[in-house]
Amino acid sequence: MNKVNESMLIDFYEFTMANGYFESGFKDTIVYFDLFFRSIPNQGGYAVMAGLESVIHYIDNLSFTAADITYLRNRKLFSDAFLQFLETFRFKGDVYAVKEGTVIFPNEPILTVRATAIEAQLLETYLLLAFNHQSLIATKASRIKFAAKDRLIIEMGARRAHGVSSANYGARAAYIGGADLTSNTYADTHLNIPASGTMAHSWVQLFDNELEAFRAYAKTYPENTTFLLDTYDTLRSGLPHAIQVIKEELLPRGVKSFAVRIDSGDLTYLAKKIRAELDNEGLHQCKIIASNALDEYLIKALLDQGAPIDVFGVGERLITAKSDPVFGGVYKLVAVEKNGTIEPKIKLSDNPNKLTTPHFKKLYRVYDPSGHACADLITLHDEVIDESKPLTLFDPDHTWRRTTYVDYTLRTLLEPIYLRGKRVYDLPDVKAVKAYCQKELETLWDEMRRFEFPHQYYVDLSESLWKIKMKLIKAHHHDQAGRSV
Amino acid sequence: MNKVNESMLIDFYEFTMANGYFESGFKDTIVYFDLFFRSIPNQGGYAVMAGLESVIHYIDNLSFTAADITYLRNRKLFSDAFLQFLETFRFKGDVYAVKEGTVIFPNEPILTVRATAIEAQLLETYLLLAFNHQSLIATKASRIKFAAKDRLIIEMGARRAHGVSSANYGARAAYIGGADLTSNTYADTHLNIPASGTMAHSWVQLFDNELEAFRAYAKTYPENTTFLLDTYDTLRSGLPHAIQVIKEELLPRGVKSFAVRIDSGDLTYLAKKIRAELDNEGLHQCKIIASNALDEYLIKALLDQGAPIDVFGVGERLITAKSDPVFGGVYKLVAVEKNGTIEPKIKLSDNPNKLTTPHFKKLYRVYDPSGHACADLITLHDEVIDESKPLTLFDPDHTWRRTTYVDYTLRTLLEPIYLRGKRVYDLPDVKAVKAYCQKELETLWDEMRRFEFPHQYYVDLSESLWKIKMKLIKAHHHDQAGRSV
Repeated sequence: MNKVNESMLIDFYEFTMANGYFESGFKDTIVYFDLFFRSIPNQGGYAVMAGLESVIHYIDNLSFTAADITYLRNRKLFSDAFLQFLETFRFKGDVYAVKEGTVIFPNEPILTVRATAIEAQLLETYLLLAFNHQSLIATKASRIKFAAKDRLIIEMGARRAHGVSSANYGARAAYIGGADLTSNTYADTHLNIPASGTMAHSWVQLFDNELEAFRAYAKTYPENTTFLLDTYDTLRSGLPHAIQVIKEELLPRGVKSFAVRIDSGDLTYLAKKIRAELDNEGLHQCKIIASNALDEYLIKALLDQGAPIDVFGVGERLITAKSDPVFGGVYKLVAVEKNGTIEPKIKLSDNPNKLTTPHFKKLYRVYDPSGHACADLITLHDEVIDESKPLTLFDPDHTWRRTTYVDYTLRTLLEPIYLRGKRVYDLPDVKAVKAYCQKELETLWDEMRRFEFPHQYYVDLSESLWKIKMKLIKAHHHDQAGRSV
Repeated sequence: MNKVNESMLIDFYEFTMANGYFESGFKDTIVYFDLFFRSIPNQGGYAVMAGLESVIHYIDNLSFTAADITYLRNRKLFSDAFLQFLETFRFKGDVYAVKEGTVIFPNEPILTVRATAIEAQLLETYLLLAFNHQSLIATKASRIKFAAKDRLIIEMGARRAHGVSSANYGARAAYIGGADLTSNTYADTHLNIPASGTMAHSWVQLFDNELEAFRAYAKTYPENTTFLLDTYDTLRSGLPHAIQVIKEELLPRGVKSFAVRIDSGDLTYLAKKIRAELDNEGLHQCKIIASNALDEYLIKALLDQGAPIDVFGVGERLITAKSDPVFGGVYKLVAVEKNGTIEPKIKLSDNPNKLTTPHFKKLYRVYDPSGHACADLITLHDEVIDESKPLTLFDPDHTWRRTTYVDYTLRTLLEPIYLRGKRVYDLPDVKAVKAYCQKELETLWDEMRRFEFPHQYYVDLSESLWKIKMKLIKAHHHDQAGRSV
């Protein structure tokens, strides 16, 4: 057993800032931070929220040990009063978040923290870490499942994962987004994700010959047999041996479910050859599992070519999200309470896309009568929309682009998770999260799930919020004549 | 505190195979597995070994809890005798490995396990996971340090890491390979990697204006001040405010070391403008830190353009190894002991590059008189090379390509880590590993460290080993006339 106190997984500058707030009269200042992201990996049309369960475990356990305090004291940067404050630190603020499995879009608040500046700052690193990693993998998995046209997906990337948590929480996120099984036993024992597995090449190599290896496996696991065909030669050795053992060992026992796996070579060519041969032998029930550096692009290409593959084993390209391995979630100060009123805050930066949307906000999703999502609307936290009236939205960058919805329904997406430090949200079982995610994905038009130039979903601001944002930009920004680049 | 038992981080098929060996008469069969990789990420010229410390912690602690056994029993696949065996399981085999920080190359054994088939199989997932992740990041960091021409590198990717271990062990691997500091406090408190940090945009936003924010920071941390310039406008707001506060607050106190940081915009343009302005104000000692999606390619481009940047903060593209986030280490059966003799084993596959090199082996590195590495030589485990005689190596694919070394020195790279289950290797301090890695990198010609088409290092086989490999290929492979693709 390793004991891991994740509390110190905090960027050092969160501590220097926290102590600085403490020392500069902001000890009790209430602030609002938004977690959001600016673009979707792989230029996709949507993302899937994951990571909230980890965030909740973190916040529930966030405290500092005597060793942590000693370390900080030895850095000779922090005041005694601040260190004393940390000794009994517990999070006492509010957290609102979009539920795991929800479909999410750029530039909308996925999670909002209302807390003292110190509390909000100390959460930053872990919140981003958990959200960025798990949303990255859940999103990737949903794309892979889409490419596979709902065929079974086995996540099998543990050996190429970026460390233990990447393997474990990656397996969980993949399951939420679209994987059906994992190779990782820990994910089953500790995170409730069903694990499976049969044989590797080493099994075949250890025996004197392939036939003997296949026989021994089928005898030990008649109900759980997948023959790995490519240790020596897929078509001329692996396949005939598998067929022989199926007929000798499995059919006579009445076994109805078995499979072969290919892990190298041209998967379309081999799958077609194998399917023809299996059918020729009357083994229509034998499934074909394919693996080897698969992702949504390769799976789509294989199926477009008619590869008769029933199950995809997806490893390194899912667990690392290889095609685009960074989910760029950020966590930005959007408001400060002063004498009980909320003062919106903005950050401009020299890259226009790093602009933030200020204020404490609410997030609505607009649905059409068919139940498909049409647009998201960000409003001030206390705005109320009269659903009996038509709703007109406008593009915040090109304000002349307007759409009016007459027949629509609304749903608010941010749910209270903590209020005054008390958790008010019960964690759903991961199977419920997966089922919810599946329903969420069904609210998307296929045009949004396409990999190439998917439809860009609208995320709009209410007029009141848009006006506040424009006012803050003008107040901070110098004339464009002298712009830096 | 979270208690994490990493023992179940094992691909499920390792358990089915282990139980199968147990049931098929291979319970005590001694096997040899090699961990190796087939290609270098980013088509680089070398890689850096990391992950051995994690592997050792894993093996030292590998055991199964009552809950683990219950889980396995409930799967109804495993025999009672096997489950009983697992209850008291401890690793009792041998492990040989290349030390952390060593420069390594494709197709050579980085780690060899000699153990029962069951023991060797159960180690597979974690060994690969730790090696693949940490070598990936150590290698990437060494490239970044090379691009930065040894300027200070701060690893600051925790928020974009793939989970907790990716952040923590990624910080450690980055430090071994070339990073000097990390943003991640846990990496300091638990892994002895120096952490640093100052302020984020939120610090600046929380105050009524930037000048006040900079003043408050400088007063709190006169000896640890880095002004972040781009919250509102780098050149027209951030920089003049920083200069003002340096002159008002830092210089009068005799502070000699301070910096400014830019995190957006064109970093070359901004750094040149800032350097000129700082120099103009006599602030030659003020350092410029740059961050924003940096990696070895962008750092090289910035420095090629003469950007006067002193320190690079490197985040997401290091901690995720974004440009190529998979290190493809594999773990393959290479031999089996039968009646006390070692029987070599091979795996062919339908992809020629998935061919393995059989047998229990030794790994030599050949150095020229200047101390540079020339080639690696893989021999049988019991081959001895007479260093007083010239050494002729040949390319294993193009055997007519031969090189003879007359004036050379040899070093064996695989060290015993466990013998008969007892650890015989003491873990060095991470600072010693970093220093050793630096020396290792100095044994490489710059031609091998280049990013574009680096020199391909030679990894050759001894003649005895090559002959055994050829014999096994012929024994298993069918004639090429009927090849599958």
